[in-house]
Amino acid sequence: MKKIINDPNKFVDEYLEGLLLAHRDSLKNVTDDNRALVRADAPVKGKVGIVTGGGSGHLPVFLGYVGKGLADGVAVGNVFSSPPAKPMYEATKAVNAGKGVLYLYGNYAGDRLNFETAEEMAEADGIEVEQVLVSDDVASAPKTQKGNRRGIAGLFFAYKIAGACADEMSSLAEVKAATELALSNIRTMGVGLSPCTVPAAGKPNFTIGEQEMEIGMGIHGEPGIHRGLIQPADKIVATLLDRILTDLPFQGGDEVAVLVNSLGATPLEELYIMYRAAYRLLEKFGITIYRSYIGKYATSLEMAGASITLLRLDSKLKRWLDAPAESPFFSQCAPKHGS
Amino acid sequence: MKKIINDPNKFVDEYLEGLLLAHRDSLKNVTDDNRALVRADAPVKGKVGIVTGGGSGHLPVFLGYVGKGLADGVAVGNVFSSPPAKPMYEATKAVNAGKGVLYLYGNYAGDRLNFETAEEMAEADGIEVEQVLVSDDVASAPKTQKGNRRGIAGLFFAYKIAGACADEMSSLAEVKAATELALSNIRTMGVGLSPCTVPAAGKPNFTIGEQEMEIGMGIHGEPGIHRGLIQPADKIVATLLDRILTDLPFQGGDEVAVLVNSLGATPLEELYIMYRAAYRLLEKFGITIYRSYIGKYATSLEMAGASITLLRLDSKLKRWLDAPAESPFFSQCAPKHGS
Repeated sequence: MKKIINDPNKFVDEYLEGLLLAHRDSLKNVTDDNRALVRADAPVKGKVGIVTGGGSGHLPVFLGYVGKGLADGVAVGNVFSSPPAKPMYEATKAVNAGKGVLYLYGNYAGDRLNFETAEEMAEADGIEVEQVLVSDDVASAPKTQKGNRRGIAGLFFAYKIAGACADEMSSLAEVKAATELALSNIRTMGVGLSPCTVPAAGKPNFTIGEQEMEIGMGIHGEPGIHRGLIQPADKIVATLLDRILTDLPFQGGDEVAVLVNSLGATPLEELYIMYRAAYRLLEKFGITIYRSYIGKYATSLEMAGASITLLRLDSKLKRWLDAPAESPFFSQCAPKHGS
Repeated sequence: MKKIINDPNKFVDEYLEGLLLAHRDSLKNVTDDNRALVRADAPVKGKVGIVTGGGSGHLPVFLGYVGKGLADGVAVGNVFSSPPAKPMYEATKAVNAGKGVLYLYGNYAGDRLNFETAEEMAEADGIEVEQVLVSDDVASAPKTQKGNRRGIAGLFFAYKIAGACADEMSSLAEVKAATELALSNIRTMGVGLSPCTVPAAGKPNFTIGEQEMEIGMGIHGEPGIHRGLIQPADKIVATLLDRILTDLPFQGGDEVAVLVNSLGATPLEELYIMYRAAYRLLEKFGITIYRSYIGKYATSLEMAGASITLLRLDSKLKRWLDAPAESPFFSQCAPKHGS
């Protein structure tokens, strides 16, 4: 895969520099190396801070969701690699307004380890920290081993709900509970069609046949649950939704938010063909779509593929989902329903 | 290239169906085949209507910019193929609020021909129509043959300015003049790295070597001005900006808006590396960036590559650029500077 880059080893530093130059009004760096970034208006008085973080290569995840009504700060790692504890800790200090800080990130071993260390450092400074891990990928482990499931595109909904609850000037315990409520209702599954190339590695992260797809593949190319000939979109969506729906389980009468996410190269037109199939299937099961998001929300560089996420809603989750939010990568100007 | 589709011949109908299901609150169909779509609140009382259109495969162009502060209606063609005059005419009638309608679209022969016919049909109904063509691609013809230049990502700025001026309840002549002012200050150039596959064709639209890039390539894979070994990002950006800057020409002291656009597969991280290079070069020339947009704004299905667009600003263009806008694919919540 050809790339528009300079030195592969400066890939992260250079995209971060460009990103900060483009979004100086909304983001600021806490450390000179740009690996800890926070909202330009951080800390926000009276508000619980939300810190996230993870490897690069997934934009808009993680960095792209630092903004109003979303996360307050982020620690940025190298491509597909956890950031160390230090930038996590620096971001924590920079967003702390005295009401405590929630760590909200994907369930990966390296990130867990480093956020644990960062929490210890922050607590030594007297900053109260709670953690919520996103583990929405139903393909990554059986339901009985939820602690082993990876966090993927469901991160978006987690930020949206956590950020909206924090914006209501809720306590740390309340923001944590809201986020956990959201996560207990979020399920995601994806399909991978092509690999991507980590710039510093210089070769594709896996191989896959010209006519093959892999159901359940992770956003770093982690193995999925089935590899086979590519199927029609309607069939792929039925396979993904079958696992998603039975996992929670979702039921007739449920109201959901739907996220159809491109892993990178898959264009919007294909996402809408998937959305069409999802809509028709959910309709058949008596499940109503309250709100939908379609686009690039959590990627793997230039990987082709997509994922579907469902968030089951109640009245509180609807309120938080509808709240305004604004970051360099996501804007939702005003409530869609009511008010 | 593998695709998540069903029947390739139903690609357009199915993505349109999905798109309308997802955005029923903001878009409605005027014709049963969904090939003429308008804002859900069309016609907007007292406002000039803006109708655009063109082939599919470029989302968010064209359809994605139908919304508040942007275009009012769109005619949708097959992939890379002009829509006929009929849906253009149907969209015209549906957005007409008695103040006239502006046709705003890319400079391609098929679109021109069909919009001319649509204008005749609309004028026979007593609807006043004006036309403005977008021809921002500096690589597609010499400056002395501006009428032969193609419209590419600069379409986004054209919609933004035209829509904001129309939102001020300006006359048709004023909206046309504002759009022409914008276009006289917009220049774009792109680079292509890989082909894309039109679903109904089933094979790539061109071939290019594993290590090659093509400077100046169009958004349907039209030949550019130079094919050669892929260069570092900084070099590519310097090549694009050199042509863009000398064409207008832009000068030290100018204020500009910058759009760094992915043609599809090229990820955000690479766009920011390009933005970094553009920022540094413009800084060197004494050109100030007032506002920047980075992402997928005008695509070629899953093609890899990118383009850079500059819009030279004056106080009026700044006001229109800063005005709020909201469509399924683009949201700008509130003025960034002042007010």
